[in-house]
Amino acid sequence: MTLLSLDETGELAQQLRVDSIRCSTEAGSGHPTSSMSAADLMAVLLARHLRYDWQHPEHPANDHLIFSKGHASPLLYSMFKAAGVVSDDELVHQYRQFGSRLAGHPTPVLPWVDVATGSLGQGLPDGVGVALAGRFLDELPYRIWVLCGDSEMAEGSMWEALDKASYYRLDNLVAIIDVNRLGQRGPTELGWDTDAYAARAEAFGARAIVIDGHDLGEIDKALGEAPGSGKPTVIIARTLKGRGFSEVEDREGWHGTPLPPAMAERAIVELGGERSIVVVGPVPEDVAPKVRDIGDVALPRYELGAKVATRKAFGEALAAIGARPEIIVLDGEVGNSTHTEDFAKVHPERYFEMFIAEQQLVAAAVGLSVRHYVPFASTFAAFFTRAYDFIRMAAISQANIRLSGSHAGVEIGADGPSQMALEDLAMLRAVHGSTVLYPSDGTSTAYLVQEMSDTDGVVYMRTTRGAYPVLYPPTEEFPVGGSKTVRSRPDDQVTLIGAGVTLHNCLAAADELAGEGISARVLDLYSVKPIDTQALLDAAAATDGRLIVAEDHHPEGGLGSAVLDALNEAGHPVQVTHLAVRDMPSSGTPAELQDAAGISAAHIAQAARDRLAP
Amino acid sequence: MTLLSLDETGELAQQLRVDSIRCSTEAGSGHPTSSMSAADLMAVLLARHLRYDWQHPEHPANDHLIFSKGHASPLLYSMFKAAGVVSDDELVHQYRQFGSRLAGHPTPVLPWVDVATGSLGQGLPDGVGVALAGRFLDELPYRIWVLCGDSEMAEGSMWEALDKASYYRLDNLVAIIDVNRLGQRGPTELGWDTDAYAARAEAFGARAIVIDGHDLGEIDKALGEAPGSGKPTVIIARTLKGRGFSEVEDREGWHGTPLPPAMAERAIVELGGERSIVVVGPVPEDVAPKVRDIGDVALPRYELGAKVATRKAFGEALAAIGARPEIIVLDGEVGNSTHTEDFAKVHPERYFEMFIAEQQLVAAAVGLSVRHYVPFASTFAAFFTRAYDFIRMAAISQANIRLSGSHAGVEIGADGPSQMALEDLAMLRAVHGSTVLYPSDGTSTAYLVQEMSDTDGVVYMRTTRGAYPVLYPPTEEFPVGGSKTVRSRPDDQVTLIGAGVTLHNCLAAADELAGEGISARVLDLYSVKPIDTQALLDAAAATDGRLIVAEDHHPEGGLGSAVLDALNEAGHPVQVTHLAVRDMPSSGTPAELQDAAGISAAHIAQAARDRLAP
Repeated sequence: MTLLSLDETGELAQQLRVDSIRCSTEAGSGHPTSSMSAADLMAVLLARHLRYDWQHPEHPANDHLIFSKGHASPLLYSMFKAAGVVSDDELVHQYRQFGSRLAGHPTPVLPWVDVATGSLGQGLPDGVGVALAGRFLDELPYRIWVLCGDSEMAEGSMWEALDKASYYRLDNLVAIIDVNRLGQRGPTELGWDTDAYAARAEAFGARAIVIDGHDLGEIDKALGEAPGSGKPTVIIARTLKGRGFSEVEDREGWHGTPLPPAMAERAIVELGGERSIVVVGPVPEDVAPKVRDIGDVALPRYELGAKVATRKAFGEALAAIGARPEIIVLDGEVGNSTHTEDFAKVHPERYFEMFIAEQQLVAAAVGLSVRHYVPFASTFAAFFTRAYDFIRMAAISQANIRLSGSHAGVEIGADGPSQMALEDLAMLRAVHGSTVLYPSDGTSTAYLVQEMSDTDGVVYMRTTRGAYPVLYPPTEEFPVGGSKTVRSRPDDQVTLIGAGVTLHNCLAAADELAGEGISARVLDLYSVKPIDTQALLDAAAATDGRLIVAEDHHPEGGLGSAVLDALNEAGHPVQVTHLAVRDMPSSGTPAELQDAAGISAAHIAQAARDRLAP
Repeated sequence: MTLLSLDETGELAQQLRVDSIRCSTEAGSGHPTSSMSAADLMAVLLARHLRYDWQHPEHPANDHLIFSKGHASPLLYSMFKAAGVVSDDELVHQYRQFGSRLAGHPTPVLPWVDVATGSLGQGLPDGVGVALAGRFLDELPYRIWVLCGDSEMAEGSMWEALDKASYYRLDNLVAIIDVNRLGQRGPTELGWDTDAYAARAEAFGARAIVIDGHDLGEIDKALGEAPGSGKPTVIIARTLKGRGFSEVEDREGWHGTPLPPAMAERAIVELGGERSIVVVGPVPEDVAPKVRDIGDVALPRYELGAKVATRKAFGEALAAIGARPEIIVLDGEVGNSTHTEDFAKVHPERYFEMFIAEQQLVAAAVGLSVRHYVPFASTFAAFFTRAYDFIRMAAISQANIRLSGSHAGVEIGADGPSQMALEDLAMLRAVHGSTVLYPSDGTSTAYLVQEMSDTDGVVYMRTTRGAYPVLYPPTEEFPVGGSKTVRSRPDDQVTLIGAGVTLHNCLAAADELAGEGISARVLDLYSVKPIDTQALLDAAAATDGRLIVAEDHHPEGGLGSAVLDALNEAGHPVQVTHLAVRDMPSSGTPAELQDAAGISAAHIAQAARDRLAP
């Protein structure tokens, strides 16, 4: 097989430019000039370096191509046309159209796209995850090529990515920065100061190669020597935005703007007209993925009544399901708190320390999901707020990632509000297709950790700092979407609903009420999303609509909101007494803080009495 | 006035160590060893460099001291004791206690604390905001000293901060990195490789000074020469965690762990016993803040029926209220989309371009709030998810910041889901004390921009990409917490509730229904939080409980959830037909995407018919 010559590659580059213009002009929106600056880089990559079997996107040794600058989708889709997998008709007439797979920014609806991009600063962090898989897990010779915009180098997440890439010596990762010097509304911070980019990349432990991004020979040489040096490589390519069409080249005011039809015609003429080159580039090595031994999973078993922190049960269950070789664990340098260290001790080769970089923590999980691993990423629940954009984009990426946040709510006590997750349930519930779990004891936690591993999408588990009694025998099952009626009698007068720590408060309140002759049903809503609507309806029916929800979370968007939504969706709205953390907490003991927030057993019992008052 | 000698400062450092141990041992929690590593640095700063009038924390020329490593609160509070503003009794007996102002991590409940820290990687970005104020707005000679942990240098936000600090030549900013080489669960990524830190800091445009963080002379020299070089300074101080007590010094396993009482006794002996040095350090210059002219605010006026995008009205209103000199605007390099450029054109000296760094964007606003400015920070609504941890911490910081997110929901059309905010209302509603606004027309937007400027806390406005008819005359008022009943008749049968773009869909649906003889009330819930509960109750009463809510947002935590919460809180739960974006959207026209999501006028009208069906 003969690769395109550099001259032929130059023609390909012009084709990519012309096609980028054609599809965006036809759509009436899109980013042609951001595509044109990188066309030479991508033409050389596609024709001469990207090892990819286009007919088999799942080939285990295929290289990975990620457009971190997702707005250059015209260029990416034009590459797909040049690779023969998207027709010219689809490219030109379907781009950005309703129902089309050629969306405004790339998503994995397309089989050659690993991750959704378009929120800048995410493709490179995602690529680090893929590169971790390649180097340490798959042990396959694929490379990860990430096209980055210069503007997005202002995102701290890009430096988290390079930091981790060099820490883990990911020399299978190549970042190509398209330094076209113009952002959306004007010049970038660093302009064409390629030396500044190089100094930063080198200081972060990468090899930096500065090139003229329109010199095909320089590009070819850089791409050829990029992978395999023991370090990640950053190619810093000086380019011109709108390169190749004199009316827009290096001009401000042309970001995210298609060329009007007459202008597009002139551009296509200046670029030498339409072409229909179909590329046969390098092919991947014919290697097979490793076959790994699958061990037996024996979940931890807890004695009824023993005091076990759910974060501890999480770690122990994780260590147990780690017998399955696809289970990978990452942590944000708090593994001794989240208890992922329990996994690290038994499966160190599948544990990645991400240090205090939560965006990269989640992005690495997304990248591992691309390679079909089952990643669990863990940190304090509060600190997942740092990565919300990455979690949101993970849903668009159709990534299957599991997140576990420990130290939720005021229950953490003395550390104070900065460490208290009080927004995490709202944040995670609002993610498309997410699953949100909040177990209250060791048994349910262990079961749900295994459930998480078999659940697609963004799956979140909230765990608790303190140790509380085990409520369920090891034989009990906790399907996602279910609930447990922990206590009930035919004469129940009120239902107390909790999850996590507040379930224990509900039980204590029920005891207190029982002493007063009030029979309270207690419902464990361990599955916050999806929620067990039927159990709520049954409880409402059984207790004359008297529902009390207590949650260690701000009142908006959490457990109480999930209950109201479910009852409303079911067509049976009922009055819910909603106890939640309504004021700004401070430090204190867990008991003091729960009491101050009005979510302690005493407050739950009083709420029940109030509901029963004549 | 004579400053402490270096020898005396060494005694002060030992006092800070002893006091850090005493308070954390007494509390039974806290981070003494993380305090001891930085005690020499902070002793020299306090005694010889920090210009601060401790009796007047609001002195305009006071230096600012920010503990980005907020977990070193024992050290900070010990400094407050040494400065004579916290008693030994309070320090030792109140630290981390319920109701105390000496919380586990610092918050501005204390008058000498600018911002809450404890989520790592935020203090330095916040400091950049204070430094921007000092250099460009206050034009006062104060310096901003930020104590950073080495672990938190893994957060990308720290590099966003240094990038902006050098871009804006903030030589009033000094970051002091306490390189004690040990994180929470083990060694940091870079250990004691101070050269690596220096290379990174210099590559990001800062001046780097590497010192022995326990050599008082070196510290004194570095602090003395740090400010004023035309660049931000980063002092990289090699230290020992737990310095001064041989049993824990440089040992793993002592992060976040107080010394047991017997051990604390031995430590205090080894450190030379308790001391009660009270420091009189350098005083601030006797300068007055600038007096600025206040101009007249003339809000833009829009013709009824004219098509105006609310993002455009936001920009125009912002330019108008810019007549007030305290109004400051920041943008994430999308000012031509959010329309903050309208402000930038008339008040360029009060406009700060933060480029594509949303964490720093929000942090800068927090820092400006410290200096009592009224900052507005703007980017695409979707991208505020990038800064959620900063927004959450802003609430704990008692910061008064205004955020405006444009391009919300599927209404944006062709750009696709990465650019569509569909979680922002949930995210912002869950922030403590937040205000969430979502106007539908130019008039209400302009009014609410002015309201925002006078509203404390975290205030968020969601704006819309497309242009829609102006609904209200310029005389109309839109108080926070209010709503507008846009259409009503005594015989209304159903209430259609919208905000932003869906209000226009509700109006179109009402027109459609009117043609069928169905009278629909239309409610504009421009204030999502606080919400106008009375208007909801009135509407429910007037239309027999038939409420339909349509929102361009995922179903969890947004407008529908706010309505359900309000009705529930008021004790009048009713069935709400809730139209929201339930599937993952793709590209398309705004009309196609709203229709596909089931939130278009046709769907709203059909929902009304369904509710009225017998």
